[in-house]
Amino acid sequence: MRGDGRTFDQPRPLSLTLDFVKYPEGSVLVRAGDTVVLCNVTVEGRVPPFLRDTGEGWLTSEYAMLPRATEERTPRDVVKGSLSGRSAEIQRLIGRSLRAALDLGLLGERTLVVDCDVLQADGSTRTTSITGAFVAVVLALCRLWEQKALPGWPVKDQVAAVSCGLVRGQPMLDLTYEEDSQADVDLNLVGTARGGIVEIQGTAEREPLRRSQLDALLDLAEQGLQKAFAAQRAVLNPRLEKLKLPPLGA
Amino acid sequence: MRGDGRTFDQPRPLSLTLDFVKYPEGSVLVRAGDTVVLCNVTVEGRVPPFLRDTGEGWLTSEYAMLPRATEERTPRDVVKGSLSGRSAEIQRLIGRSLRAALDLGLLGERTLVVDCDVLQADGSTRTTSITGAFVAVVLALCRLWEQKALPGWPVKDQVAAVSCGLVRGQPMLDLTYEEDSQADVDLNLVGTARGGIVEIQGTAEREPLRRSQLDALLDLAEQGLQKAFAAQRAVLNPRLEKLKLPPLGA
Amino acid sequence: MRGDGRTFDQPRPLSLTLDFVKYPEGSVLVRAGDTVVLCNVTVEGRVPPFLRDTGEGWLTSEYAMLPRATEERTPRDVVKGSLSGRSAEIQRLIGRSLRAALDLGLLGERTLVVDCDVLQADGSTRTTSITGAFVAVVLALCRLWEQKALPGWPVKDQVAAVSCGLVRGQPMLDLTYEEDSQADVDLNLVGTARGGIVEIQGTAEREPLRRSQLDALLDLAEQGLQKAFAAQRAVLNPRLEKLKLPPLGA
Amino acid sequence: MRGDGRTFDQPRPLSLTLDFVKYPEGSVLVRAGDTVVLCNVTVEGRVPPFLRDTGEGWLTSEYAMLPRATEERTPRDVVKGSLSGRSAEIQRLIGRSLRAALDLGLLGERTLVVDCDVLQADGSTRTTSITGAFVAVVLALCRLWEQKALPGWPVKDQVAAVSCGLVRGQPMLDLTYEEDSQADVDLNLVGTARGGIVEIQGTAEREPLRRSQLDALLDLAEQGLQKAFAAQRAVLNPRLEKLKLPPLGA
Amino acid sequence: MRGDGRTFDQPRPLSLTLDFVKYPEGSVLVRAGDTVVLCNVTVEGRVPPFLRDTGEGWLTSEYAMLPRATEERTPRDVVKGSLSGRSAEIQRLIGRSLRAALDLGLLGERTLVVDCDVLQADGSTRTTSITGAFVAVVLALCRLWEQKALPGWPVKDQVAAVSCGLVRGQPMLDLTYEEDSQADVDLNLVGTARGGIVEIQGTAEREPLRRSQLDALLDLAEQGLQKAFAAQRAVLNPRLEKLKLPPLGA
Amino acid sequence: MRGDGRTFDQPRPLSLTLDFVKYPEGSVLVRAGDTVVLCNVTVEGRVPPFLRDTGEGWLTSEYAMLPRATEERTPRDVVKGSLSGRSAEIQRLIGRSLRAALDLGLLGERTLVVDCDVLQADGSTRTTSITGAFVAVVLALCRLWEQKALPGWPVKDQVAAVSCGLVRGQPMLDLTYEEDSQADVDLNLVGTARGGIVEIQGTAEREPLRRSQLDALLDLAEQGLQKAFAAQRAVLNPRLEKLKLPPLGA
Repeated sequence: MRGDGRTFDQPRPLSLTLDFVKYPEGSVLVRAGDTVVLCNVTVEGRVPPFLRDTGEGWLTSEYAMLPRATEERTPRDVVKGSLSGRSAEIQRLIGRSLRAALDLGLLGERTLVVDCDVLQADGSTRTTSITGAFVAVVLALCRLWEQKALPGWPVKDQVAAVSCGLVRGQPMLDLTYEEDSQADVDLNLVGTARGGIVEIQGTAEREPLRRSQLDALLDLAEQGLQKAFAAQRAVLNPRLEKLKLPPLGA
Repeated sequence: MRGDGRTFDQPRPLSLTLDFVKYPEGSVLVRAGDTVVLCNVTVEGRVPPFLRDTGEGWLTSEYAMLPRATEERTPRDVVKGSLSGRSAEIQRLIGRSLRAALDLGLLGERTLVVDCDVLQADGSTRTTSITGAFVAVVLALCRLWEQKALPGWPVKDQVAAVSCGLVRGQPMLDLTYEEDSQADVDLNLVGTARGGIVEIQGTAEREPLRRSQLDALLDLAEQGLQKAFAAQRAVLNPRLEKLKLPPLGA
Repeated sequence: MRGDGRTFDQPRPLSLTLDFVKYPEGSVLVRAGDTVVLCNVTVEGRVPPFLRDTGEGWLTSEYAMLPRATEERTPRDVVKGSLSGRSAEIQRLIGRSLRAALDLGLLGERTLVVDCDVLQADGSTRTTSITGAFVAVVLALCRLWEQKALPGWPVKDQVAAVSCGLVRGQPMLDLTYEEDSQADVDLNLVGTARGGIVEIQGTAEREPLRRSQLDALLDLAEQGLQKAFAAQRAVLNPRLEKLKLPPLGA
Repeated sequence: MRGDGRTFDQPRPLSLTLDFVKYPEGSVLVRAGDTVVLCNVTVEGRVPPFLRDTGEGWLTSEYAMLPRATEERTPRDVVKGSLSGRSAEIQRLIGRSLRAALDLGLLGERTLVVDCDVLQADGSTRTTSITGAFVAVVLALCRLWEQKALPGWPVKDQVAAVSCGLVRGQPMLDLTYEEDSQADVDLNLVGTARGGIVEIQGTAEREPLRRSQLDALLDLAEQGLQKAFAAQRAVLNPRLEKLKLPPLGA
Repeated sequence: MRGDGRTFDQPRPLSLTLDFVKYPEGSVLVRAGDTVVLCNVTVEGRVPPFLRDTGEGWLTSEYAMLPRATEERTPRDVVKGSLSGRSAEIQRLIGRSLRAALDLGLLGERTLVVDCDVLQADGSTRTTSITGAFVAVVLALCRLWEQKALPGWPVKDQVAAVSCGLVRGQPMLDLTYEEDSQADVDLNLVGTARGGIVEIQGTAEREPLRRSQLDALLDLAEQGLQKAFAAQRAVLNPRLEKLKLPPLGA
Repeated sequence: MRGDGRTFDQPRPLSLTLDFVKYPEGSVLVRAGDTVVLCNVTVEGRVPPFLRDTGEGWLTSEYAMLPRATEERTPRDVVKGSLSGRSAEIQRLIGRSLRAALDLGLLGERTLVVDCDVLQADGSTRTTSITGAFVAVVLALCRLWEQKALPGWPVKDQVAAVSCGLVRGQPMLDLTYEEDSQADVDLNLVGTARGGIVEIQGTAEREPLRRSQLDALLDLAEQGLQKAFAAQRAVLNPRLEKLKLPPLGA
């Protein structure tokens, strides 16, 4: 049993509050236990230079933590004058992951800008961001769909993410900050509801990982992803139905 | 009557949620209508160079808006590499205002770092930040008091702030974003519960202001401040009583 | 009596040297006692994006102090890589203040860039900058007028600024650096010659200000503004007459 | 067969030139086909703040590409004023990977700074950097050992890295730039000679990856790592023998 | 004859106003025709790390132009976030040149910070800065001498600088901005009153220079330096005499 | 005799490896003794704003040292966020020097970007960069010539550079790092094969230089340039002949 009463293969409860902020085209407050991330999606009517005049769209992401999302205060990146390496790495991951869910050719020459701002960080902020941001992206696309601005529905599949790790030899799903700081191995898996792997990132911080341990972690993570997909469907399918769009998971 | 049904001298309802984030020494989510600001206070065990070895404490503030707190997405300051002039100006105002509430000599050589992050910006974000941040500062001081870390109680008076303006010649209290963009004159008043003025900032964006109009705005603002002080007392006095500290407004 | 022999309601002598630098379209060296600011105005043939194709013009300002304008050497902003919060705040104030003097619709799609560089700083540098920069702006407009580049004369009214404060309870006009560092309250007033208030900024650094004290300071400041307007007229009206433009204060 | 005549499971020839630059404590020019990286190791007599007075050492890395290492010229990071997200991500990976090879407690309070500068980039620059940098690190440790500056030999195991990917459905080892740009999936594996996995990073750029495909890629990568370990041993073991240090792979 | 009536070997009149700004330890406004530079010297009680605990002092310089010192407005370096290459190059030259005049061992562990700010730039700003800054440095040293803070008088020799060039094949002394923009060759010479060369910088912008032409330019420049030394002596020797310090040029 | 066995007037052996990196239009690895610089030339199809629509081309340069090119590790410029003054100064020199070799009117509206990256720095890196970069520039122009993209052959003359100095009173050619750090005077000369001087930069770090000493150094440097021109011709003339272009030195 873990500090918060969960079994090893149990993720924290996931809550997805839609339309948390009123201005963005898509806005979701996602909570996984005490990790809280605000995911806002903006639709911009232009694309990066390499896509101009191709008819294709793009999705990009920015990730940041409020200074006191963490136990110790983390100085703002702007104070040092540039993005931290950690933030840069995570926002590139979020962007790649979400693009895997979309048919960008059906977006038109638009960019979806996905802002993930961590309000409270109790571990697994990058995976929680991806799971929540997918929902915000679908909300933004719904708005474009209502405006009849899209030639087709660009959502190819659900994308979600989950963390797991080896803590004192024990595989565990969805690590809290405390568990993460004790873990020998830390693995993040981004996947699709149809069973595809979009991204895998595993780091052995202390002891190298055996192949059999990697397999066990992947099994655990794949199982965790299913719960995230279910939570996404629970909040999104009613919206999609109203717009007569195909429900997720169908 | 105004767009949201208020009379001209009526502020928006003010809600103050204590302990919104679990890590900071003081944390308050303040809402004034659709303006939402998260105020987190960190206690650091050091002071700026000019106060070293004086035994006095300090309070400093940082202010930022999430990119999509606004109707149009505002790029993050870090992307341009430095703080915007507007943010710099506001965070200096917040710091000065809150320091006026405290006897810094009773803080010891500590710095209170007040982070005000705007989640949703429907006008009057700087005044809402000040009103909410005062509450978060008191929470942080309560924690120090419980730890018996303070030689005396440093809160001298309540500090709150309110905006008002002239919209088509009409003085109005607590402007929304839409009202603010139509205002000829914009005035922010920071005051104390005992009736002192801490800061006054008035700008005539279009037509210069007559002295009599300035007087009318000041009257309106002083009246608005009273409601803010009452809201602060409603959430803080129960906490202060538990610690046997003097209630505010006594 | 004050350190430099002035009475409490007496401003320092104001001197305005026109055409101090030969290249700018408008150039004024302004001295108020030992505070010396060089105000240079550049006319640029373009406007910021939000004004493109509107036919309207704009005015923007930059403010800086030479490193040794002050008693202690202040490092240049470029060494730290970004504008200080103080400079950012002041240059925004100067821009807003000067725009209030002009009918920007009569400027055409041009930007007036006003550089205020403080050569020697003995208090009240921001108000001295505004008073001097107004003169430099009129000089630049005269040059455009001579070139028959303007559809009408854009100067609506004079703009000047003055500082005052409470020093040991005594209201005082036009503070030196030493007086400012002892002041409990510091108030800057920007106004027009026709009696309008353009900007009011008052800060109670130590003790909150009573409303009656604020009123006394405003009375003092309004009186100080009149001397600044007179000094502006003394140097500008001969120029305006030569060009058969309406004299100021008429 | 591939463009350069290799079979799918064949890595490019790996050459390791020791002591390429005369000043660093360890210097290696590593070539994998047309990818060329200069790895220089500096020994600094201090550690980051979080390790001070612990007796432990640290290893950190910086990674950069010369502007014309690539087919199109890439502007230098310094021109934009900050490190690119890609560089930040890679140098963090290199640092983590190399730390996994060492017992940092045997380093003393020293930092090994590993500079990986890509002179020519024909794919797989991050994995080539890791493989080459491990050799440069051992050279630097040999120098410390000769100076009798180490309490014990800190090399726990060899670390190397290899890339592989799915190109038109075909698993391929050690991708060139051209192959990489056609790959659906890109996987980097960092491992130790004793068979441990240090880091796994897999990205499905186009089509999500099935678990069975991931397994096939991991098999291929583990096989590729063996050749890298052999190349490291071939150049390092003669040096180690001279110093009577345990040979690698023993 | 030249545009301003000078002969080819005639420098512009040089004026040196001492104590132009009241705060710096040494302050000189230097004018060479329409080139105007404010040179302020600050004495700081510390040295750069490489000189700590050596008992030696240092001299460093910063150089900048006000935005409208030039015919076209030059954006401030801080707006782009870093010092321009030109400014960096010039301030390094000023520092090296002035250090050649001093016995830094007699300064004690102090740094002289020399700020050269160009108010109006009509060519030859770097050489005019050096000539004026030498005077400001001597003023600052006089102040230290009066305070009996120096073990000996650190001025070894006078340092001044002069520009010359080839304009349509004609060697000319002390170029204006217009002459400089037509010159094929531009040469700056920094020298000492005892006839030593401290720095020579010659650039053939259009046509390479023949050795005989270089010799002619050097002759002209050496002659120009004599007038600069005389101007320095005229303003400094009365001060030195008052302090019973050895006059310059003795 | 010198540390490396050379006589005072003997330069280090110069080696020029063509096509060192495969991607650039021109690539040369130049070695002068233990100084090693990689010079890569990129042809870009645009010019800076001041040349647009003139039909003329441009050449610009960037210079950097790898962190461990030097005996002590030099932090990367990007870590401090901006180019060092020294790098800025050198890259401006390289650009000016190489432009003197070319008829830019025959380049068309193209920019040659010359990257000089120092891999190992044993003195004289700026002069070695110029000598090597000239060769890389000619290689890039050969490629444009083969593509029949040039209206005429833009190379007017060879450009090379050499350092010399006074070490303990003795003039010496081509200083190593150790010799340079002991030199009283350091002189760099950039010249053309037809005997013109393009740039002269001399600095007396310790003792001012007499005119006769300057003459002796110039004689020595001119003699050193001849060897550099010969080395350039030896590698370039075979290429030029193949393309039926006029050989250098003819």
